[in-house]
Amino acid sequence: MRIVLALGGNALLHRGEPLTSDNQLMNIKRAALQIKCIVPNNQLIITHGNGPQVGLLALQADAYPAVKSYPLDVLSAETEGMIGYLLEQELANLLPARSIVTLLTRVIVDKNDPAFSHPTKPIGPMYSKAEALQLAKERGWSVAPDNSGYRRVVASPLPQKILNIEPILWLLNHEAIVIAGGGGGIPVSSSSEGYSSHGIEAVIDKDLCSAMLAKEVSADCFLIGTDVDAVYLDWGKSTQQPIREISLSEINSLSFAEGSMGPKVKAACQFVAQTGKKAIIGALDQIEDMLQGHAGTCIKA
Amino acid sequence: MRIVLALGGNALLHRGEPLTSDNQLMNIKRAALQIKCIVPNNQLIITHGNGPQVGLLALQADAYPAVKSYPLDVLSAETEGMIGYLLEQELANLLPARSIVTLLTRVIVDKNDPAFSHPTKPIGPMYSKAEALQLAKERGWSVAPDNSGYRRVVASPLPQKILNIEPILWLLNHEAIVIAGGGGGIPVSSSSEGYSSHGIEAVIDKDLCSAMLAKEVSADCFLIGTDVDAVYLDWGKSTQQPIREISLSEINSLSFAEGSMGPKVKAACQFVAQTGKKAIIGALDQIEDMLQGHAGTCIKA
Repeated sequence: MRIVLALGGNALLHRGEPLTSDNQLMNIKRAALQIKCIVPNNQLIITHGNGPQVGLLALQADAYPAVKSYPLDVLSAETEGMIGYLLEQELANLLPARSIVTLLTRVIVDKNDPAFSHPTKPIGPMYSKAEALQLAKERGWSVAPDNSGYRRVVASPLPQKILNIEPILWLLNHEAIVIAGGGGGIPVSSSSEGYSSHGIEAVIDKDLCSAMLAKEVSADCFLIGTDVDAVYLDWGKSTQQPIREISLSEINSLSFAEGSMGPKVKAACQFVAQTGKKAIIGALDQIEDMLQGHAGTCIKA
Repeated sequence: MRIVLALGGNALLHRGEPLTSDNQLMNIKRAALQIKCIVPNNQLIITHGNGPQVGLLALQADAYPAVKSYPLDVLSAETEGMIGYLLEQELANLLPARSIVTLLTRVIVDKNDPAFSHPTKPIGPMYSKAEALQLAKERGWSVAPDNSGYRRVVASPLPQKILNIEPILWLLNHEAIVIAGGGGGIPVSSSSEGYSSHGIEAVIDKDLCSAMLAKEVSADCFLIGTDVDAVYLDWGKSTQQPIREISLSEINSLSFAEGSMGPKVKAACQFVAQTGKKAIIGALDQIEDMLQGHAGTCIKA
């Protein structure tokens, strides 16, 4: 089976957890152990988020005023290097007989996407409301609530086209495990004059990019690994209960929290609607069980 | 012909030039125009340095004390993302019919390499002597003269083994242009327990790594593109003259400046000695002429 597995940026650096290299490495080691379980008999493409990481790089760049901060497209490319490396290395330790290959992935966005004037993608660390409002004032940031705190939010335009799909397929055909589309891909804009070299201040939603990637590589299954064990009905209420299996038409009649489960459900549904194949959302710690139908929420056509 | 082309990190961000995204992009555009000329009829693997860039990331990280700076192996991985992206994009504009693919590249180093106690690799911006000595005192850096100024220097262990050579060959066989081994590769250490997850505080010499890569992929020619148009006899004296063609035994009897032409000549000679093929050192602006024997210094067995 060909699987696209999307790892949440927040599953690699938990919300509220200090954004240190050690914390990230610890979470990546845990993820790699889970990924190992689903490697036999499957072709695997791994994507990952980069919200906490790209936000950290932006904070570091802003803290060094001698050189103007690089735009978010370049910082996203840096996170593909950072996270890709750590993940590749841990997988290489666990799967010494397999090639683990990390590809940079550029993704075209529309520079007139309305998302550029309505930032929604949380990046960087969690702040208190007072801190967030102060930072917004000082730095011209947009900020928004995220779970129990506040975070900086940036534009998150829709992915229009993923570049370099073919090399991913070539590598899969050689039994490589491919890490690609990190951070939702590096956002680039394109016109009749080619790809623009003017930086793009945006971070693409990694779930929507991963759903598109899963379709483009003709994946049989699209897995989203996050820090919640399933999609829930009545999430946060006393009546909350996990959904085990649901059809596209049933789940379309429900609504989920924007900024957390909402985008994941939307991405999963997009893949199922476009391909007729299944998508599964669940906890990173239960990937193997999710694939066998014993955990997570499976969305079917 | 299969060519490995090594681009100097200082050719992408000139010594003394502010380390801005715009400056880097301008130099990368210039390099891409040159690279385009040697694409027809050749298979091409492009490597690049990262001295100025990895130093900038380290300065930015140090300027944001809320999160402990990530080690240099992780920052090197970030520069593979940053530079790889900008170069891939410019080449994609100039060569729309070709796949341009950037792979992360890990390179094993010996954690007991004596280089760890004798830092020699310059990174980051140029400082005056007084500034450099002050920074060395404040931050525990090693600093050393580099051309007309001073720079931070870090450990530069020898590359022992480049990981993921096979995927590079698979991609070449599909006519892709491959960007790999950026920044001399991401330094990793290996033991019977696998690859270490303890960060490596080092930056590998990109010319030595590129020479090893050229040998491993059975390149027919190893090109080093820098900011000087040839290797010179009596460099900096009134009697200086460029060397056009030289044998391995002749060049081995000469000596060149450590930290500038020395490492390039050493890397080129290593490739020629191990393979019997030719290596050419010259200006990034003259790559096509170098390949045709009209520019640069050609070292032959």
